Amino acid sequence: MTYTIETIARSLGAQAFGDLSLEIDAVAEPQDAGTRDLALAMKPAFAERLPEGQALAAVLWEGADFEALGLKAAIVPARPRYALSGLSKQFDHGESFPKGVHPSAFVDPAAELGVDVTVGPLAVVSAGARIGAGSVVGPQSFIGACATLGEGCFLREGVRIGARTTLGARVIVQPGAVIGGDGFSFVTPEQSAVERTRASLGDQGEGESQHWERINSLGAVHIGDDCEIGANACIDRGTVRDTKIGARTKLDNLVHIGHNVVIGTDCLICGQVGMAGSSTIGNNCVFAGQVGLNDNIFVGDNVIAGGATKIFTNVPKGRVLLGYPAVKMETHVESYKAIRRLPRLFKQVAELQKAVFKNAEND
Amino acid sequence: MTYTIETIARSLGAQAFGDLSLEIDAVAEPQDAGTRDLALAMKPAFAERLPEGQALAAVLWEGADFEALGLKAAIVPARPRYALSGLSKQFDHGESFPKGVHPSAFVDPAAELGVDVTVGPLAVVSAGARIGAGSVVGPQSFIGACATLGEGCFLREGVRIGARTTLGARVIVQPGAVIGGDGFSFVTPEQSAVERTRASLGDQGEGESQHWERINSLGAVHIGDDCEIGANACIDRGTVRDTKIGARTKLDNLVHIGHNVVIGTDCLICGQVGMAGSSTIGNNCVFAGQVGLNDNIFVGDNVIAGGATKIFTNVPKGRVLLGYPAVKMETHVESYKAIRRLPRLFKQVAELQKAVFKNAEND
Amino acid sequence: MTYTIETIARSLGAQAFGDLSLEIDAVAEPQDAGTRDLALAMKPAFAERLPEGQALAAVLWEGADFEALGLKAAIVPARPRYALSGLSKQFDHGESFPKGVHPSAFVDPAAELGVDVTVGPLAVVSAGARIGAGSVVGPQSFIGACATLGEGCFLREGVRIGARTTLGARVIVQPGAVIGGDGFSFVTPEQSAVERTRASLGDQGEGESQHWERINSLGAVHIGDDCEIGANACIDRGTVRDTKIGARTKLDNLVHIGHNVVIGTDCLICGQVGMAGSSTIGNNCVFAGQVGLNDNIFVGDNVIAGGATKIFTNVPKGRVLLGYPAVKMETHVESYKAIRRLPRLFKQVAELQKAVFKNAEND
Repeated sequence: MTYTIETIARSLGAQAFGDLSLEIDAVAEPQDAGTRDLALAMKPAFAERLPEGQALAAVLWEGADFEALGLKAAIVPARPRYALSGLSKQFDHGESFPKGVHPSAFVDPAAELGVDVTVGPLAVVSAGARIGAGSVVGPQSFIGACATLGEGCFLREGVRIGARTTLGARVIVQPGAVIGGDGFSFVTPEQSAVERTRASLGDQGEGESQHWERINSLGAVHIGDDCEIGANACIDRGTVRDTKIGARTKLDNLVHIGHNVVIGTDCLICGQVGMAGSSTIGNNCVFAGQVGLNDNIFVGDNVIAGGATKIFTNVPKGRVLLGYPAVKMETHVESYKAIRRLPRLFKQVAELQKAVFKNAEND
Repeated sequence: MTYTIETIARSLGAQAFGDLSLEIDAVAEPQDAGTRDLALAMKPAFAERLPEGQALAAVLWEGADFEALGLKAAIVPARPRYALSGLSKQFDHGESFPKGVHPSAFVDPAAELGVDVTVGPLAVVSAGARIGAGSVVGPQSFIGACATLGEGCFLREGVRIGARTTLGARVIVQPGAVIGGDGFSFVTPEQSAVERTRASLGDQGEGESQHWERINSLGAVHIGDDCEIGANACIDRGTVRDTKIGARTKLDNLVHIGHNVVIGTDCLICGQVGMAGSSTIGNNCVFAGQVGLNDNIFVGDNVIAGGATKIFTNVPKGRVLLGYPAVKMETHVESYKAIRRLPRLFKQVAELQKAVFKNAEND
Repeated sequence: MTYTIETIARSLGAQAFGDLSLEIDAVAEPQDAGTRDLALAMKPAFAERLPEGQALAAVLWEGADFEALGLKAAIVPARPRYALSGLSKQFDHGESFPKGVHPSAFVDPAAELGVDVTVGPLAVVSAGARIGAGSVVGPQSFIGACATLGEGCFLREGVRIGARTTLGARVIVQPGAVIGGDGFSFVTPEQSAVERTRASLGDQGEGESQHWERINSLGAVHIGDDCEIGANACIDRGTVRDTKIGARTKLDNLVHIGHNVVIGTDCLICGQVGMAGSSTIGNNCVFAGQVGLNDNIFVGDNVIAGGATKIFTNVPKGRVLLGYPAVKMETHVESYKAIRRLPRLFKQVAELQKAVFKNAEND
């Protein structure tokens, strides 16, 4: 995995300076870089640590003087953070899973594998499953009956794809993710305490024993092209139709997506976000870590929710949210400041009472 | 999987109208239904989309006119949502795991399997384990030493059942769930900063280094009959006695149950709920998604907690909770409204100050 | 697993009284104890239940009169909770995994196993992996390419160790944990709505579609000596350098650690805590369940955060936190009390307005 400065710069569409024939084996932070590493010093603050390492070449910001920094060569991309995307792909060593169908895997004879499919050690591919060309089913992963993977999917170790689940092309799934668990859907023969509480906003009526009858999940899960699903994340099957994740949407670790949820395209759903059943999320939404969503609500396109925002009701397009319960981010900041000012307010009101009512009896 | 309208209606105990001999292969939402699908149009709003599909028969609400809706037959149950439970079982295609003990599974000779037990591909059943009649151990699942499964359990793919864990009859476990991890229990040789903080409500005293010594989990986990455990959920072993989940209680995905917790019967514990160690929960409780419970507290029967409620102290029977920290739902709504009114209150107090103290110096 | 009272007391460094030759097979809670169990009655409240069981010996508190409690022998440790650590290790039956390399496991010929290594049924050890002496790779666990385990590690069933991950000595990993998933790191070609929102604190500017380009994770994960990682917890790889967990730090179930995070030594990170990428945590920190941390922040040594605290900004050394957003625990308690007093305050201000402005027009 050796490239010249020239090759790297060209592949990034970046400017290059100095000795373009210098060979690079890896990228590194400035303080850790060896003589064959490309140091990532995209800001002056990072570049300050170059002397701690031995880098001869670095990625620098527009206008940086590589020679003054003691370097022999430099790459200067237009948007350094974006360049990191290209660089990280060039220098990734990957998982090194053994190629082809491993003899220890169990592939049902009634499964269909496209060309160049890899099935890792001790993986299972069930009857009726179809795996698109070039896809990788990682070690100890499971593909359920009649599940479908598009071309170029990459499933890491221990992934669980339930029966009848569909993954588009180039979907990446991190270890331990479960796509196609059964929905959490139960019903009581009579109206339940929860239904009464929702109707009355707080009064559950008479609280007797209640028996929960299971509603099985007949739908499956559909994941669009170019999605990514995080480690140990869970996406449940729909009740009648499929739960759906739109193309290019990315889910982080330990995310929970309930049955019937529909998420649009190009969303970022960060770690430990949870969505209850039957909610609909627009395109281009970004939910920070630990955000929670109620069931059966609608969230418009381009909504951004800060860390641990708890969304109980519909959200119009473009809103930026924070808090429990979720409010506009600026409203949350205001409320928070107001709460911090309360001790002073209590004092002011006490003074007013004293001044107005003269005697202390009134308090 | 073909039934007539008559058969379906009879099995649901529902009324049927029109051509009772019409054959049905599946259920579908109205807009997606084909000619051999039973459309689920339990409300007028759903029925409006019937013309988008091709349904000849539907499940309708009491009093609906199926002929006016252009249908040849209809099923009208007393409580449509409850009928969905029966319907979803009739039309479920299931997981299609291969029957019997798969040759790729490892079953220790010292394990006991009841009649009609299925052990999926690449599953492990350890020495001393006992699997009840008719139970299914899904592909790549693990049954630890001396664990016991009752009759008719259904474990999906990649389930982990730790040593000495007991599951009752008909327990359903979703993919990746871990029942019987070790409790998270550590102790310092001297009183720890956390113990000092709890005693003083906020002052941890001198913060030095502290060494955590592990307390091993000698207890196991006991799951009652007819429970369901969600995907990637975790239930830890007890320290001395078992952690216990009461009969018919259902846990959703990514739920965390700490060591020594005792949960009653017929509870619904939704996605990503977390319970710290040694708490006791009554019967018929419903905790919405992302609810959190402190350790060593008692929650009475029939308690309902809204989304992301954080419960720090004991809760009496029948209470409906919301908020962080948890308060009665109506109190939370009141506090929330009060906070929203604060900007106006600040203005009012400023006006009062001006009026009462005349000059601005006083502020 | 039989010990005399004398042996047990000596190994705990505790005092012993009565018949020191009495044999003990197990520990039990007082009400459940049989004649060969050591009852755990460290407090008078626990001892009250001794008559419900049949214990002849118990662990008691300093000053307890064992004969008056009807016992033949007693062990009295200086700090009973700490003694539980030693006792629980003595009486632990463990997982009973089959010893040695199981024939059903797949161990790549290019992996190196130290002496006395156990590899469980259907586990995978990849090329270039090195497993330290005495370590246990549990059933169905996965060790990625070039990963390294120190001596005496214990991995339970279904653990996933990604390629190039490093575990120190004596690390314990609970079932289903994923160490070395890819970081959740994406970048847009142009400045994204999230970047604009952060810069403006709430205004995301024009909300158009945005395409997320993946940044691959070139770093790995480094876990220090004597750490423990909980069931289904997830620790992501770093982008360029390793994500790091300091020695002796313990993570509970379903914890999420983002890319590039650095955690110090001797921390306790409880169930469902989530840390976004690139944050740095000091030594001896304790985070209760469901705590959340923003990305790119610094938390000093000896910080304690109560349940579900959401930390958005840097935290100085020694602070005790609670709330969303996190504040000092005492400030949170104050704010909470103030909010509960608001209805009274509204009334007081209304009375003042009436008194000061006389007529109702002013409101």
